[in-house]
Amino acid sequence: MGKVLIIGAGGVGTVVAKKVAMNASEFDEIMLASRTKSKCDKIAADIKNVKIRTASVDADNVDELCKLFESFKPELVINVALPYQDLTIMEACLKCGVNYLDTANYEPKDEAKYQYSWQWAYHDRFKEAGLTAILGCGFDPGCTSVYTAYAAKHHFDEIHYLDIVDCNGGDHHKAFATNFNPEINIREITQRGKYWENGAWHETDPLSVHKTLNYPSVGARESYLMYHEELESLVKHYPTIKRARFWMTFGQEYLTHLRVLQNVGMTRIDPVVYNGMEIIPIQFLKAVLPDPGELGENYTGETSIGCRIRGVKDGKEKTYYIWNNCSHEAAYKETGAQGVSYTTGVPATTGALMFMRGLWKKPGVYNVEQFDPDPFMQEVAKQGLPWNEAHDIDIEL
Amino acid sequence: MGKVLIIGAGGVGTVVAKKVAMNASEFDEIMLASRTKSKCDKIAADIKNVKIRTASVDADNVDELCKLFESFKPELVINVALPYQDLTIMEACLKCGVNYLDTANYEPKDEAKYQYSWQWAYHDRFKEAGLTAILGCGFDPGCTSVYTAYAAKHHFDEIHYLDIVDCNGGDHHKAFATNFNPEINIREITQRGKYWENGAWHETDPLSVHKTLNYPSVGARESYLMYHEELESLVKHYPTIKRARFWMTFGQEYLTHLRVLQNVGMTRIDPVVYNGMEIIPIQFLKAVLPDPGELGENYTGETSIGCRIRGVKDGKEKTYYIWNNCSHEAAYKETGAQGVSYTTGVPATTGALMFMRGLWKKPGVYNVEQFDPDPFMQEVAKQGLPWNEAHDIDIEL
Repeated sequence: MGKVLIIGAGGVGTVVAKKVAMNASEFDEIMLASRTKSKCDKIAADIKNVKIRTASVDADNVDELCKLFESFKPELVINVALPYQDLTIMEACLKCGVNYLDTANYEPKDEAKYQYSWQWAYHDRFKEAGLTAILGCGFDPGCTSVYTAYAAKHHFDEIHYLDIVDCNGGDHHKAFATNFNPEINIREITQRGKYWENGAWHETDPLSVHKTLNYPSVGARESYLMYHEELESLVKHYPTIKRARFWMTFGQEYLTHLRVLQNVGMTRIDPVVYNGMEIIPIQFLKAVLPDPGELGENYTGETSIGCRIRGVKDGKEKTYYIWNNCSHEAAYKETGAQGVSYTTGVPATTGALMFMRGLWKKPGVYNVEQFDPDPFMQEVAKQGLPWNEAHDIDIEL
Repeated sequence: MGKVLIIGAGGVGTVVAKKVAMNASEFDEIMLASRTKSKCDKIAADIKNVKIRTASVDADNVDELCKLFESFKPELVINVALPYQDLTIMEACLKCGVNYLDTANYEPKDEAKYQYSWQWAYHDRFKEAGLTAILGCGFDPGCTSVYTAYAAKHHFDEIHYLDIVDCNGGDHHKAFATNFNPEINIREITQRGKYWENGAWHETDPLSVHKTLNYPSVGARESYLMYHEELESLVKHYPTIKRARFWMTFGQEYLTHLRVLQNVGMTRIDPVVYNGMEIIPIQFLKAVLPDPGELGENYTGETSIGCRIRGVKDGKEKTYYIWNNCSHEAAYKETGAQGVSYTTGVPATTGALMFMRGLWKKPGVYNVEQFDPDPFMQEVAKQGLPWNEAHDIDIEL
C-alpha cells in the first residue's frame, strides 16, 4: 500500500486514472497531475467511487516535480506524460525517494532517437537509493515484453526468432488521425526501420519493408517493419534470439497522408520561423489534428497485438503465438478512451499493482521482462486484457 | 511619364521591377516597396541599368501607405502585394491622388470569396477624383481578358461560348509547391467551382468537374473546372456570352497533396490555438512550403494559357483559340523568376506602359477588357509574351 501519483492526462492518463480508481483498495491515496490541471479535473469528475486529487505540474521541471512529490509524498509515480519527460521525472524520483514506472522510453526532443541507454544509466543511482524503476509497462513495450518473458519461462528453452506484431484493425471514421500523441506517433513512424539479426542491428528505409500478415478476428493486413524500443531490451535479456523484428499495420490512406505531411515539411522536428517566432511544424500539426483522446466515441473494430516466437523446447523446434485482441468500443464503454489508450493504460495499472503488492519491487532500473511474468499475466487478464495463445501453428517467421 | 511605385516583392514583384527597369525611359522614377525592405533591396541589387528606390510599407495600413505616397509622389501604383490589400491601397490612392493597377481582385482575409463588387464600388470616387484604376492586369485575369476583348473586336460579332484554359506544363522538381503565394493559391483552388451558363452562375463541388484537354506544345492534361475572377467581369461586359468557364490543369500528386492538407486541416483559414496563440493553419503552411520565388532555378517546361471561343461572325458560326506559351527556363533566365510569376508580371508592366502612354487612362475603375486591346496586344508580345491564334479549329466547347 502507498500513495500513487499519475502524471499525464491524455488518453492513457485517463485509462490509468480510471483503472487505478477501480483498484482503489490497493492504494492509500491517488493523485492525477499534468501541465493543465483542468484536464485532470475533467477525468477526476468521472470517477465516483473514490476521491482523486488533482494538481498542475510542469514535468520538464525537476524542482516543480519535487515540490509536488514533497507535498503529496507518493510511494510510486506512474509516468504517462511525454517521453521527453522521463529523465526529469526519474531525477525528481531520486531526489525525493519515489519509485517510478513508465510506458515509453526517453527520447530527446530535438532528435527522434529511441534507446534505453539514458534510462539504464540511472540503474546504480536507483539501486543505491533503494528505489524501483519499472520501464516500458504499456502494451508494446509492456505486455509484449512480458509475453516474451512468459514464453521463455514456460514454453522455450531458447527463443530464436521473435516477431512482435501490432495491428490496429479499428476504424475511427476520420480522414486522418493518430491513435496517440501525433507528435510522438509520427516521430516514431517516420524514423528509419531497424531489426536485430545475427548479433547486429540492420537498418531499413522508413516503412520500406512490408508484408501481409493475418491477425486473429481481424484478417489480413499489410504490416510494416519498424523499430520499436522493446527490441533493444529483449535482445539484451534473451541473448539466444537470432532475429527480432517489430511489425505494425497501416492503411494505404494513412501512409498517403503521412507521405504528404513529410513532403511538405509538416513532420519536421526542427523549428521554422513563422512571424518571427520559432515553431516546430510537427507540434503545430498536433494542434490541427484530432485529439486522440476524442477518437473513442465512434471507434469500431479491434486491436490485435502479440508475439510470434520460434525456438526450441526439449530439443524440438516449436512455434508459439500469444496475443491480445482489444475492442475499441468495449474500451470506450469502460473508460471513455479508445483501445490504443486502453491497451497502454491497463498494463501500466497492472504494473503499479505488481509494485504495490511487492511482487515487482527491487532496487534499480528494470525493463518489465526482468520481473516474474506470472502474476502480471494473471492480473492483466483480470484488469481487461485477456490473452490467447496458440502452439505449433503455421506462422511464417 | 511619371513616377511608378511597385508594392510587393514576391516573384511577381521581382518580374515587374525588372521589366519596368527594362522600360525605364517611360518612367520618371521607380520605387519598390514591401513589408520587408530587404526583399526589395535584394531585387533592386540585380537591376543595373537604372536606380530603383526601395522602401518598407505595411500595405494593410492606409496611413502608412499615404505617408509613402506623399513622400515619393507616384503617378501610378502597381499593386502586386496580397489581394487582401487591394482596398487599403485603393483607399490610399484616392486620398493621395495616385492612379492604380493590380493583378488580382480583392478578397477578405477570413473568407475565400472572389468578387469584384468591393472594387467596382470605388468607380464613382475614382471618377470624381480624375484617377484611373486598372483591375486584373496579370495573365488571368489580364491577358485572357484582353484576348477576349481582342476576339470580340476583330473576330466575332457575338461571343457565345468562352473557355479560358490554363495549363502549367512545367515541372519544378519538388514533391509539392505552389507557383505563387501558397495561401492565395490554395484558397483559390479549394473553393467551390462556378461557371456561367444561360444567364446564371452554376456551382460545382471543388475540382469535381474535369476533362482532358490538349495544350499546344504540352499535350494532353487533365483540366479542372474552377471559378476564376475574370469570368465575372467578362460575362458582364460581353452579355452575348451563353457560357463561360475556366479550366486549370493539376497533376494527380498535386491533388493528393492538396486533399491530405485539407483533410488534416492545414488549409483552414480560421485560427487554431497553438501554445495560447491564434495561428491560421494555411499561413503556417506557407512558412514550411517552398518559397514560390525560389522555384525558378530548376523549373523546366512551359505554361500554356489562352481563350477558346465559339460565336458568330458575319452570320456564320466560328471558333477561335488564342494563347501564349511561356517557358519557365526562359523566364528564369531573363528575370530570375519562373513562368507563373513572369506571365503575371509582364502584363502588369505592359498595363503600366499603357497607362503612362495615355492609352489606358480614363477616370474610374475598369477591368482591362474595357480598354482598347490593340496597343496592349502589340506591346505585351514585345515585352515577352507573344501570342498565337488559330481560327476555325476543332475544339470542343
